[in-house]
Amino acid sequence: MTVRHVALVGGVTTPFGVRPTTWAEMAQEAGAALFRSMPDLRADDVDSLFVGAAEPERFAFQSHVAPLAAEQMGLKPRRILQRTELACASGQSAIRSAYAAIAAGLSDVAVAVGVEKMNLPSMAEANASMGCVMDRPWDGPHGATAPPFFAMVAQRHMLEHGTTPEQLAAVSEKNHRFANANPHAQFYAKTFSKDKLMRLPIVAPPLRLGDCSSMTDGAAAVVLVAEELARKYTDAPAWIRGTGQYSDFHNLAHAGSLTEWPGLTIASREALGRAGCSLKDLDFAEIHDCFTISEIVEYEALGLCPPGEGGRFALDGRGDIGGDIVINPRGGLLGCGHPLGATGIAQAVEVFEQFGRKAPPARQVPDPEWALVHNLSGSANVHSVMIYQTGGAS
Amino acid sequence: MTVRHVALVGGVTTPFGVRPTTWAEMAQEAGAALFRSMPDLRADDVDSLFVGAAEPERFAFQSHVAPLAAEQMGLKPRRILQRTELACASGQSAIRSAYAAIAAGLSDVAVAVGVEKMNLPSMAEANASMGCVMDRPWDGPHGATAPPFFAMVAQRHMLEHGTTPEQLAAVSEKNHRFANANPHAQFYAKTFSKDKLMRLPIVAPPLRLGDCSSMTDGAAAVVLVAEELARKYTDAPAWIRGTGQYSDFHNLAHAGSLTEWPGLTIASREALGRAGCSLKDLDFAEIHDCFTISEIVEYEALGLCPPGEGGRFALDGRGDIGGDIVINPRGGLLGCGHPLGATGIAQAVEVFEQFGRKAPPARQVPDPEWALVHNLSGSANVHSVMIYQTGGAS
Repeated sequence: MTVRHVALVGGVTTPFGVRPTTWAEMAQEAGAALFRSMPDLRADDVDSLFVGAAEPERFAFQSHVAPLAAEQMGLKPRRILQRTELACASGQSAIRSAYAAIAAGLSDVAVAVGVEKMNLPSMAEANASMGCVMDRPWDGPHGATAPPFFAMVAQRHMLEHGTTPEQLAAVSEKNHRFANANPHAQFYAKTFSKDKLMRLPIVAPPLRLGDCSSMTDGAAAVVLVAEELARKYTDAPAWIRGTGQYSDFHNLAHAGSLTEWPGLTIASREALGRAGCSLKDLDFAEIHDCFTISEIVEYEALGLCPPGEGGRFALDGRGDIGGDIVINPRGGLLGCGHPLGATGIAQAVEVFEQFGRKAPPARQVPDPEWALVHNLSGSANVHSVMIYQTGGAS
Repeated sequence: MTVRHVALVGGVTTPFGVRPTTWAEMAQEAGAALFRSMPDLRADDVDSLFVGAAEPERFAFQSHVAPLAAEQMGLKPRRILQRTELACASGQSAIRSAYAAIAAGLSDVAVAVGVEKMNLPSMAEANASMGCVMDRPWDGPHGATAPPFFAMVAQRHMLEHGTTPEQLAAVSEKNHRFANANPHAQFYAKTFSKDKLMRLPIVAPPLRLGDCSSMTDGAAAVVLVAEELARKYTDAPAWIRGTGQYSDFHNLAHAGSLTEWPGLTIASREALGRAGCSLKDLDFAEIHDCFTISEIVEYEALGLCPPGEGGRFALDGRGDIGGDIVINPRGGLLGCGHPLGATGIAQAVEVFEQFGRKAPPARQVPDPEWALVHNLSGSANVHSVMIYQTGGAS
């Protein structure tokens, strides 16, 4: 079996934030920006559309959003059209589906777009909707929505490993600093020192406002093509080299541990193995910092440091520019905001921009060749990983 | 490029109907039935899970249903896990995703499961949710939910082509007759004569109760494998030979015609072309009879008869056993009910059972080799088609 290589050859992100726009308007905005950014791409070139969206049924009272996005973007998909949902990892799921379709010869040029509208007139309704990404009938009655759940992870990590509030704040400071140089980020041009972060209001102890990613509106889109078409659209393609996912529970009663996420270890090993590279080859990684504690546990689960030492890894700047590996140069979910379906696509846009040396100096990774993208979803029960490489040959 | 062939090697359907069970319980029921039906399949063989579900966020107030289904079915996906949504075609979308993943070498053994819970304590809430599969802000205020929309199609077809209520009833009588021999159908063991159907209450003129598929609870699951594994699980694999989809509008103002569905013509030609077979090769087809008029328009769009003659095609029994081609031997959406995400999977289960000569005599197609499966979604703006073949070699 010889399948085709697949390249990501373009991508855009709309501004992220609290936006006075509808779901459909943001899909349109992403489409318009995408075609502006790629003058050689015609709408008719695009044979397939994959839409990542977590909960438009609740946040926008609109289902069947794939043809809605197609219409708003001026596309008429003639090969494959679908929406993928995997809660906070919905965007990466859309990319993975496009990748599989192209590798299998079912599509040649595909767009993956992620859109989420989360700021509603009633934020109580929005928060209730967020609650149903976890096990609603069993975990919901115990209050296990996202902030309380990740607060438990943080409390337990502090108990087991002596992780400190300052270490949490170090993650937030780094990602907000990168976001400070990202014009599309929700917290663009805003400064957050560790001291300031440690004085923000508590959301769920020990997590403060700056430890939590936001309910955000936004969209992002990328173009993926078969290997023989890559050079038509860009000089710096981002080749998809590997993919991995793992899921072993849903109900929290079945979680083996709060502070160890073996699913990420398994998924990243699978993806790296398929890519034929090792952790040491990676120049940067976009990982799922929905909360500061998530990034710390992910350092450990990825194998960037031993178990329990993620907090120190953060405080020592080993995930910063000049450290072992640059983590979340885009600004992460903490700095950019987290429009669920758009996040995974925006991370891929960052990979493309970094490979093309187009990021502002304050967050450009020096000479990147390999990148890892990670999303978790739900109660960290599902982990999704993709590996990208730039370079000449397919 | 040589991609792997993909075979459907097993499948089950739960009973369809108004059921006192939750979404999660039906996923569990489908999983248990699947493993009972395939003694050689171990949970650990399954590396990927694709979940088709249209609106669990509204019907079951639960998102992120892919890991929920995995847990309920006893699966721990280690390659790919995702949910696909394409309204009424969500089930077929899950199969297409599994097909692409296996063809691309990303999965070897995948389960596609479709689940929908539609009967709620408040059917007003359920019906409002159904409305959001169409363009809610633009078409919704004009009352364009499914029955009124397809009623307009029927009225226009009657005006343009002289289609009659008796011709509509002929479609319903055939599909209910097949369902009468399908123990999993919502209308199993119930008899509907044309006369009786033409006296049922009007839902949206000219459509009567028997012209409309039901709000139904149910689940179905299939197993797809790479070619080299097919014989391990069955002697009569259903090979996926071709796929096609087309979408050219969302807002009804952009629909070119109510009574011509060129999207289906394009999608079926693409699928047949990829399969290397023609319409004449098909022994039977499972097509999307969400309403009787849909099946009539589909006869025409598929090319089974000239435009305008779909009603006569039905009345003459040309889609019946002994006619040109058997249409909807499972009993269709009219006879089986239409649990959105489960329908596309249940159609594939029917293909597998027909190929294995396991259908009851009243609906067994004689010596079938080729089958087409079709789903439309929304306002017939998206058409999805797959072609299956049984036989010896891969």
